[in-house]
Amino acid sequence: MEEIFSYNALFNFSKDIFLKIGCPDADAGLAAKTLLSADLRGVDSHGVARLSGYVRLWEVKRVNATPVLKIIHESPSTAVVDADAGLGLVSAPFAMQVAIDKAKSAGTGWVSVQNSNHFGIAGIHAMMALENDMIGIAMTNASPLVAPTFSTERLLGTNPIAVAIPAGDEPAFVADFATTTAANGKLEILQRKNKPTPEGWVQAKDGSPSTDAAELKQGGALLPLGGDREHGSHKGYMLGSIVDIFSAILSGANYGPWVPPFPAYVAMPENMPGKGIGHFFGAMRIDAFRTAESFKKDMDQWIRRFKNAETVAGKGRVIIPGEPEAEIEKNRRTNGIGLLSSVVEDLRSLSEKFEVPFC
Amino acid sequence: MEEIFSYNALFNFSKDIFLKIGCPDADAGLAAKTLLSADLRGVDSHGVARLSGYVRLWEVKRVNATPVLKIIHESPSTAVVDADAGLGLVSAPFAMQVAIDKAKSAGTGWVSVQNSNHFGIAGIHAMMALENDMIGIAMTNASPLVAPTFSTERLLGTNPIAVAIPAGDEPAFVADFATTTAANGKLEILQRKNKPTPEGWVQAKDGSPSTDAAELKQGGALLPLGGDREHGSHKGYMLGSIVDIFSAILSGANYGPWVPPFPAYVAMPENMPGKGIGHFFGAMRIDAFRTAESFKKDMDQWIRRFKNAETVAGKGRVIIPGEPEAEIEKNRRTNGIGLLSSVVEDLRSLSEKFEVPFC
Repeated sequence: MEEIFSYNALFNFSKDIFLKIGCPDADAGLAAKTLLSADLRGVDSHGVARLSGYVRLWEVKRVNATPVLKIIHESPSTAVVDADAGLGLVSAPFAMQVAIDKAKSAGTGWVSVQNSNHFGIAGIHAMMALENDMIGIAMTNASPLVAPTFSTERLLGTNPIAVAIPAGDEPAFVADFATTTAANGKLEILQRKNKPTPEGWVQAKDGSPSTDAAELKQGGALLPLGGDREHGSHKGYMLGSIVDIFSAILSGANYGPWVPPFPAYVAMPENMPGKGIGHFFGAMRIDAFRTAESFKKDMDQWIRRFKNAETVAGKGRVIIPGEPEAEIEKNRRTNGIGLLSSVVEDLRSLSEKFEVPFC
Repeated sequence: MEEIFSYNALFNFSKDIFLKIGCPDADAGLAAKTLLSADLRGVDSHGVARLSGYVRLWEVKRVNATPVLKIIHESPSTAVVDADAGLGLVSAPFAMQVAIDKAKSAGTGWVSVQNSNHFGIAGIHAMMALENDMIGIAMTNASPLVAPTFSTERLLGTNPIAVAIPAGDEPAFVADFATTTAANGKLEILQRKNKPTPEGWVQAKDGSPSTDAAELKQGGALLPLGGDREHGSHKGYMLGSIVDIFSAILSGANYGPWVPPFPAYVAMPENMPGKGIGHFFGAMRIDAFRTAESFKKDMDQWIRRFKNAETVAGKGRVIIPGEPEAEIEKNRRTNGIGLLSSVVEDLRSLSEKFEVPFC
């Protein structure tokens, strides 16, 4: 049940909506571009399907459409940015650019962001580094949905990490993954199909193992990468914690269970220790370590060796991080982006509400 | 079947052995201290049990006992160190100190190391940052034992990541973990006990699932954190790859399947693209982001909130990364370090060979 739309049509519609809530023209374009990058790369859960979610955050005054982004602390290779409660879709590219500019002079740049909102997919921000012959890093904390090992409480978000590394003739290496066994979007797909999850994805409210894809709605939790202690869930918990601390404690944002929830109807936590949600970005100039040419030659050799590895019968070849997303993007730029009818309906409601013609 | 030794006795013996293979006095002391930190923190597989392994690498001329450590490339916040084929136990603290010194002036410091050897446990290097009110990061690539998702070939090491983060009144947060479901040391323990592994730890030579703890000796492989694709092994594979690239491609060391094996009797790979093995270190000065005081106050609150989380029945409380190791260290400094009789035998052989009195 999909309807196909061109990238340009969805971009223009999204930009128009961001203009209607009061974003300046440049911000509206940037927010639409960041949002749509998720649809292009096949991360449908984080793209235009979330447009109405961002609008609702603006409606309840949790998103400021005209933020003044400011560096509030810095050193030659670091900065803290106050996102002024603006869209993460706008503050993230701003902060990543600060990291890149720092890297130009200091070799590397590291920027922690406070007082922000959800920033779309992490990978697209990390990838800003590539055209500068830099390695890019992006992470963010997020609404608490994940129970640390042994906990019944949800204390961490899915806290993704993205790392983009330039290559030479081969496409760039782009890793972008939630620090949970499975991202929330995958649960939603199984719910729609009325199917159970594999073991190790979720737990019930009392912490017992579960395969119910609707477990989050019943007080259950997502599990850190690894699933349970025997399979290394303490490692996923550590990774999610590091993302939380780099994103929010270095910047002065909210952390752990105090991260503001994405759904606007969910009440804000009490006694919040910081401002908004937090992100963390890094840029490392390749030639601050060795020549970009020699680095890329070795990256090409790394990629080819892994691509050509002998594989398990019936499994196809080893996938290089970022390959599948790049292929989806190529396809969708040409053939358009398919949206579920529920998403289309949602966008039509926005169209009516804001009197913006739909695609 | 354990014999108990004091830290000082094992330290002095290890230092004497390093002196006998020709290390300068300061290096011998540093190598012994780094090595023994693993025993103190309960990572028995990486401590004095490996002393004879390092000696054998020296015997086959793969370890240089009198290296000249050099910075061969740098920027305000970065450096590449050539470890001159020296012990990683010595080059790692050197490189971490370079990162810390860079952070003092530039806010952060990032050092990639080529031409090195195994460096003991990652955590102890990351922890050097703590006394400077910095966050410390350490990683290394290692002998290829891990099959990326879908591969039957072993292309990555267990490639650990350590992150040490200072707190205020609470003990520091110290994460230190292999990017596999289980570290090799845990397999060895199960082999000794003649027990199977849980699912998702290893695969057989043809890539089929296995629970045989001796699988590595039969051409099988360790699995990336996650175990299989359905449980997120592609994420463990991405993490291990990032460690490999930061450690070895940024520095010009060997990567992937070309990393020199730790056992001296295993032949070196052909057509090695770089020099030795690679490490990567980072230091971030807290007050390059915000005051150390405010950061530590929030870290204390983070730690207490997680410690006090409601937990699954029968599971004890949520563990803060580094807590168990700190407790083991406290205990072992007072009560001594227990060694298996096979390890004691190994040390006695070294004692005879080098005419160094044993403990």
